[in-house]
Amino acid sequence: MTTIALDGMGGDHGPSVVVPAALATLSDEPAARFILVGRREQLVEELRRCRGHESERLRVHHAPEIVAMDESPAQALRTKKASSMRVAIELVKQGEAQAAVSAGNTGALMATARFVLKTLPGIDRPAIIRNLPSVRGHAHVLDLGANVDCTAEQLVQFAIMGSILVSAIEGKERPRIGLLNVGQENIKGNEIVKQAAELLRASHVNYVGYVEGNDIYTGDLDVVVCDGFVGNIALKASEGLAQMIWQFMRQEFSRHWSRRLAALVAAPALRALGRRVDPRLYNGATLIGLNGTVVKSHGGADVVAFQQAIREALSEANHNVPERIGRELGLMLGAGQVA
Amino acid sequence: MTTIALDGMGGDHGPSVVVPAALATLSDEPAARFILVGRREQLVEELRRCRGHESERLRVHHAPEIVAMDESPAQALRTKKASSMRVAIELVKQGEAQAAVSAGNTGALMATARFVLKTLPGIDRPAIIRNLPSVRGHAHVLDLGANVDCTAEQLVQFAIMGSILVSAIEGKERPRIGLLNVGQENIKGNEIVKQAAELLRASHVNYVGYVEGNDIYTGDLDVVVCDGFVGNIALKASEGLAQMIWQFMRQEFSRHWSRRLAALVAAPALRALGRRVDPRLYNGATLIGLNGTVVKSHGGADVVAFQQAIREALSEANHNVPERIGRELGLMLGAGQVA
Repeated sequence: MTTIALDGMGGDHGPSVVVPAALATLSDEPAARFILVGRREQLVEELRRCRGHESERLRVHHAPEIVAMDESPAQALRTKKASSMRVAIELVKQGEAQAAVSAGNTGALMATARFVLKTLPGIDRPAIIRNLPSVRGHAHVLDLGANVDCTAEQLVQFAIMGSILVSAIEGKERPRIGLLNVGQENIKGNEIVKQAAELLRASHVNYVGYVEGNDIYTGDLDVVVCDGFVGNIALKASEGLAQMIWQFMRQEFSRHWSRRLAALVAAPALRALGRRVDPRLYNGATLIGLNGTVVKSHGGADVVAFQQAIREALSEANHNVPERIGRELGLMLGAGQVA
Repeated sequence: MTTIALDGMGGDHGPSVVVPAALATLSDEPAARFILVGRREQLVEELRRCRGHESERLRVHHAPEIVAMDESPAQALRTKKASSMRVAIELVKQGEAQAAVSAGNTGALMATARFVLKTLPGIDRPAIIRNLPSVRGHAHVLDLGANVDCTAEQLVQFAIMGSILVSAIEGKERPRIGLLNVGQENIKGNEIVKQAAELLRASHVNYVGYVEGNDIYTGDLDVVVCDGFVGNIALKASEGLAQMIWQFMRQEFSRHWSRRLAALVAAPALRALGRRVDPRLYNGATLIGLNGTVVKSHGGADVVAFQQAIREALSEANHNVPERIGRELGLMLGAGQVA
């Protein structure tokens, strides 16, 4: 049995998304248990609305406070000690849960997770890692915004953590790691990237070299490493472009009656296309590098998307990702391979 | 009459793209003249193949050497003084042409253009600027890869140049300038971006604040400013995602006979969609900040795409973009507003 603590109050929709997502996942994942953390009354009311009920596999854990979506991380950390977010993470710390999932304020979640769980030995700062679709399969990209300035050593830590995560949850022996740059030639890039490339060539990860922005989506890589500034902007630019294409598509398929008719005929193909790039099926970014699994769901996630974040947390908890990273880093620290 | 020097040998396809593109543009743009620069024999042969001929509006200018696509910029600069690329840029320097267009090696083109034309007073280094489609209209983004490390002052120079370019060629009085960052709040970003924001708030450009990756495509901005590392990766990530979506679409519309039938019915809508995001219609990146207009076409450009790069060069030359930037920077230098 794996137990996941769910921040029941986080995100734009709070219990009205988290509770039905937990109920739906209960039947899909018979070896999972959930703790719904938040205001008992609201959570129980939502359970009733969804025709669910508390059980051994679905407990409600009361936490009276809520971290607002626009609250500063420092303030949340200082003043919201009984928040649903904080209590969910503390359940992981206490070993009552193996992972926490929250759709709340990213900055507050990162600050609270670092404070409560601490980073693994050998890791300067946690990173945000997420799975993105690619032409063949998918690729994990990190950091997606936790660290706007990174040293070469941090980029190497990201590569090691990404490699262990992919090898743990996908069973790949030697995940292919690329370092994001503005070209593939050795002379390209800034000093930090060049230094990181040198360290990665000397490391034991399966480093394939510099890669460019489009390589995120080609399927040739398992892990793409970059600093959080670049990663966040590349991800959001991709999201913006995808939204633009969908909007143009909707416009073109509704221009006149003949186009609307064509949309009906094309609907099965367009729906199939939509499923392959549906961002909800890639929801769930992990705060990696901590003594415990914490997954951040998109704030606007619906039930389908939040379920995906829960599945991501379950998979990482089941495969003991933080322990594996800790163990491997411990060995490397012993051998003097990381600072 | 505006004269454009065309590097006839550059790019993956050389004369077989440049010559027909020049011929097609001759009839579309009655006030344009072209100088085809490169190996006379090859260019004349290609003209014959396309049933075109030399005229007052279409001259061939012999240049025996060619810069290879993988040649180092330093080597091209040192050893290829009679290359089609170099000679085309020198025609701009000598005032025989008002702009040059090349599909050749980007690094060599940038190095040669800087060496021959020099940067404008007040500009540390030129940047690469390009127009990208957006939900409403389009946005110019710079730098797209010329400068991997930028100071805050350089980002401000980029903002000024982008603002002048858009106001010159689109007639907009106060183009809206955004600074690319990982969030819109003031506390977000690295030190360079924060410094640049402060300088931009104090400047006379219409600075709207921090913007995120997706804002490139929303249509709310005229100019998006970033360093060349981030800009290049964001652009290529977008391109990679767009290619992935097209590939998925082709697969979904050819899965079985019913899907292929649907593709026929949907063809007009899909073609209309394709035209709105066709990268060929956005081909042509300007090396901005030089004493002269130099436009870089994508190396793999076809005739339609290369024509677009020519039109971009014509528009900038007709609107005296380099002179306007030089004049405005001169005023600002005089007033002590730029370093």
